[in-house]
Amino acid sequence: MAAWAERLSGVRGVLLDISGVLYDSGTGGGAAIAGSVEAVARLKRSPLKVRFCTNESQKSRRELVGVLQRLGFDISEGEVTAPAPATCQILKERGLRPHLLIHEGVRSEFDDIDMSNPNCVVIADAGEGFSYQNMNRAFQVLMELENPVLISLGKGRYYKETSGLMLDVGGYMKALEYACGIEAEVVGKPSPEFFRSALQAIGVEAHQAIMIGDDIVGDVGGAQQCGMRALQVRTGKFRKRLPFGKHRKAQRK
Amino acid sequence: MAAWAERLSGVRGVLLDISGVLYDSGTGGGAAIAGSVEAVARLKRSPLKVRFCTNESQKSRRELVGVLQRLGFDISEGEVTAPAPATCQILKERGLRPHLLIHEGVRSEFDDIDMSNPNCVVIADAGEGFSYQNMNRAFQVLMELENPVLISLGKGRYYKETSGLMLDVGGYMKALEYACGIEAEVVGKPSPEFFRSALQAIGVEAHQAIMIGDDIVGDVGGAQQCGMRALQVRTGKFRKRLPFGKHRKAQRK
Repeated sequence: MAAWAERLSGVRGVLLDISGVLYDSGTGGGAAIAGSVEAVARLKRSPLKVRFCTNESQKSRRELVGVLQRLGFDISEGEVTAPAPATCQILKERGLRPHLLIHEGVRSEFDDIDMSNPNCVVIADAGEGFSYQNMNRAFQVLMELENPVLISLGKGRYYKETSGLMLDVGGYMKALEYACGIEAEVVGKPSPEFFRSALQAIGVEAHQAIMIGDDIVGDVGGAQQCGMRALQVRTGKFRKRLPFGKHRKAQRK
Repeated sequence: MAAWAERLSGVRGVLLDISGVLYDSGTGGGAAIAGSVEAVARLKRSPLKVRFCTNESQKSRRELVGVLQRLGFDISEGEVTAPAPATCQILKERGLRPHLLIHEGVRSEFDDIDMSNPNCVVIADAGEGFSYQNMNRAFQVLMELENPVLISLGKGRYYKETSGLMLDVGGYMKALEYACGIEAEVVGKPSPEFFRSALQAIGVEAHQAIMIGDDIVGDVGGAQQCGMRALQVRTGKFRKRLPFGKHRKAQRK
């Protein structure tokens, strides 16, 4: 406990990952992770500031919050930092008109975005939407652009659903990067700007905050690079026995 | 002409790429590239040894040769070096039982391969077969293996069909490499072993051979790394105006 007290000294704010930490997504809305509903309630009763910092990009914030509320979580749309709204802000600031390769569930976040005559491609975890035809169309749009811009909502390798491990957007981002010979701009964890916007929303400095997540790269590594403390939970995609060398290296990043 | 004579002095054998050099694949069997049928005929009348060296992995050699013969080419199955048969040899030598993520058109090449209880994944240009479900299954098979082996038939970025540029296997190979934290073994161009097996088949040394292809990386770069001369045609995926910086770098490789 002494070690813990030390580790948490001066902490004023907590950033909570959602998928794999609060719940595992899946059919029927997924399932809450044991103890997480009460843990969030306790944090909210404490003096600590709480912000939910997710790379969820299959659902709009409204849909995501609805799912979590039905599972018993005390959470509202205004407490969530997510990649889709952050991307919309960037698109408007830079006059970008996206060709979207995204999940239908998050499309409503882009309702007020001009998509005529696209001058960039935005990809998110499209799930079944990652068909060859849709990937090839995104590829062709990029190849037709003089200065191709690819924005990826997160770059996760995979996530855990109740049914098992699922490919996340990261691999598909890499596929388009390789095919087009370009580098994507990542909006979401582990991008420092993304963590900073979450901290700004609760008025907490990086050195006063701790990130709690299940992804050693996206959550823990990203937060530490921003000067935050970080904690990896042993739920979600966490795997005690790492499958193989390269992966272990990746997880050390 | 003098320059040409010099460039070709001592050449005894010619390796010919197929897609983008002899024909552009596509609906209705695709279309022969102007002059290519006669060029192959002339080469075969010459003292030069000729070998067809392709990364085609949507079709079996039999099907590919059938398409080319219908387009008027003088070509037989025994003259073609292709990744699928080379892969089958590797699988047998190393006792590997593949989970296949390939196009139905090439499945017959794997007819005598044991696929029970897979201990590796083989991917090829699966086209529409690159669904999220199929990619996720290949990912899950790799993640379940203690020592995951991923074999990719080529690593092309894209190729040209009569309908336009199409994503090749390379991007999907990168997606699985990233998601699993592993490195694929590439069978096909630009792998040196692959070029060597094509040269062996016609009994010609690398310094006596020239590779003719439309891919600056897979054909020209790969052949040059083997000590062969190489020539890039201006058909197929060749693009005079390179789309952008990174891509230009890639093409210089």
